[in-house]
Amino acid sequence: MTDKPQLVKDLGEHGLLKKLQCFCPQDVVGDDGAILPTDPDKSLVVTTDVLVDGVHFSDRTTSAFDVGWRGTAANLSDLAAMGATPLGITVGLSLPGELEVDWVEELYRGIDACLHLDPAYSIPLVGGDICCSSLTSIAITALGQVDPQRAIRRSNATPGNAIVVTGLHGLSKAGLELLLDRSRGKDLVAQTKQKLIQAHQRPRPRLDVLKYLVNIPAEIAIAGMDSSDGLADAISQICHCSGVGATIERSNLSIFSGLTVLVGEKIAWEWLLYGGEDFELVLCLPPKYAVNLVEQLGDNAAIIGKITQNKEVILVDNIKNKTQEILNISKGFKHF
Amino acid sequence: MTDKPQLVKDLGEHGLLKKLQCFCPQDVVGDDGAILPTDPDKSLVVTTDVLVDGVHFSDRTTSAFDVGWRGTAANLSDLAAMGATPLGITVGLSLPGELEVDWVEELYRGIDACLHLDPAYSIPLVGGDICCSSLTSIAITALGQVDPQRAIRRSNATPGNAIVVTGLHGLSKAGLELLLDRSRGKDLVAQTKQKLIQAHQRPRPRLDVLKYLVNIPAEIAIAGMDSSDGLADAISQICHCSGVGATIERSNLSIFSGLTVLVGEKIAWEWLLYGGEDFELVLCLPPKYAVNLVEQLGDNAAIIGKITQNKEVILVDNIKNKTQEILNISKGFKHF
Repeated sequence: MTDKPQLVKDLGEHGLLKKLQCFCPQDVVGDDGAILPTDPDKSLVVTTDVLVDGVHFSDRTTSAFDVGWRGTAANLSDLAAMGATPLGITVGLSLPGELEVDWVEELYRGIDACLHLDPAYSIPLVGGDICCSSLTSIAITALGQVDPQRAIRRSNATPGNAIVVTGLHGLSKAGLELLLDRSRGKDLVAQTKQKLIQAHQRPRPRLDVLKYLVNIPAEIAIAGMDSSDGLADAISQICHCSGVGATIERSNLSIFSGLTVLVGEKIAWEWLLYGGEDFELVLCLPPKYAVNLVEQLGDNAAIIGKITQNKEVILVDNIKNKTQEILNISKGFKHF
Repeated sequence: MTDKPQLVKDLGEHGLLKKLQCFCPQDVVGDDGAILPTDPDKSLVVTTDVLVDGVHFSDRTTSAFDVGWRGTAANLSDLAAMGATPLGITVGLSLPGELEVDWVEELYRGIDACLHLDPAYSIPLVGGDICCSSLTSIAITALGQVDPQRAIRRSNATPGNAIVVTGLHGLSKAGLELLLDRSRGKDLVAQTKQKLIQAHQRPRPRLDVLKYLVNIPAEIAIAGMDSSDGLADAISQICHCSGVGATIERSNLSIFSGLTVLVGEKIAWEWLLYGGEDFELVLCLPPKYAVNLVEQLGDNAAIIGKITQNKEVILVDNIKNKTQEILNISKGFKHF
């Protein structure tokens, strides 16, 4: 007997696929493509993301399980941001032959756990491809369906809309910093530290928000996107696509207390606005529906401002300092 | 003025996406996902493939244009193999910052050309993601739709079915060998050489076959897959999934004359059976429909054998040598 871990090249492509087939429903594997029934009155929604070793994850901050979870969460979040209910995902893997099979299985366990996170959805893994590469990368495509009349679009915002966030921002960035420098966060209680790290490692796609939107009449257009590239980025993108502006009221944005304890108020605000990867939804809709939505979503959801005719995106502080600043989207995450 | 080529990192992700948006229809870009209408009585078909630099393509044998074409063709071929009409594809790109922007544009031109190859289909590019990596890889997901009753499945073969190939095999492998060793093929006329190279660089997905299948009654189950991993592999996979065997009659398989001129009969047969990447369809259906189909498909299509109760896949030669051999699928392309 030996303790040497099994490598991808020991199993080969067919062996590995066989091992991973338990993560796929039996009726969708074994053909050139998977067949998925869809509702006759819905349109298909498609979104795709690529995660690369050393760029989107690293052994230092992300276990294989979490790579799978985060990649899946990011794609499901895009579906939620379109108002779409998920139909399934596909996974295209590039793997070095020297990689341990355990790592790949953990990746799939993470994908599977995120797909079955919400008891309201049991989302199947409907296809994939595995191939050899010198670098690990994972391409995920998520498929969903939406009543085309009810699709959430970035271009739907109109002046007078209230801007809703479905939760807190900046936590994922704080969690990442804690993972990158283990000496940080000594002033945080263990539970708070854990919450921040969890926010980074196991973000929850806000598919749960959709059930509160179905009661809003179909003729009310909702604008929105997710805050994966940062809150400021999401607001700016919506405004750009809709040809409008926004005024955000600083006092309406909650800062999670752990953030201020960790890095002080100034940097906490930077992270809240530009940190990214919180995967909350930023939604724009008429005030009366917004009020109702925030009530249903509970504590961390809030109306943070309103859409304006004026095309600037301004952060105002009407309470403390009476200042105003223009949000700068170029501070967000740069991919190259 | 300078002649220095523009690099991916000079443009950045947003700049590059903007440049590539001309390849996407205007109404499907600019949101977290693309929205695609589907026919109410159809099911969705999904298939995905990953291509990696140095594994699936190299500068020696494949231009950027051809990488895009081949990746697209492989995915559309999977749709054809399911009997599905295409709805669109997504492209997930991992690119080194040092890559020339021209290369990426050529890649997209190749994708676009293959998407619009058949005037019967104008297939949109419905989404994508670009990210930084030390290695170029391309993950393509193709979406299609099919009447679930008419889906072609590997498991549909029954004893007595005729086995149809929609075209010649071995040409792509010959083209690859010619590209890898430019000194070869001196005995071939230029046109033949070009045909072999073209078979490798610009394979044509057989979506055109679908129009001949619609007249077959829906209750006639058709088995099939594409021959991307080789003809022997396709037959063996169908037999394995259907729990049947097959007898292939050697005299019914045509060898393209250029192959025999290039490498002699023995290796030509190897390439025909195990070469791969010809992207023809291998279909199993009742003889009377098979005869009719082959007639409509024209010259290079043929009935090459039949499905048997006996689970072996046998290549017989009833005319010349009266030999028989068992086809060995493990000779096919190994990915690790």
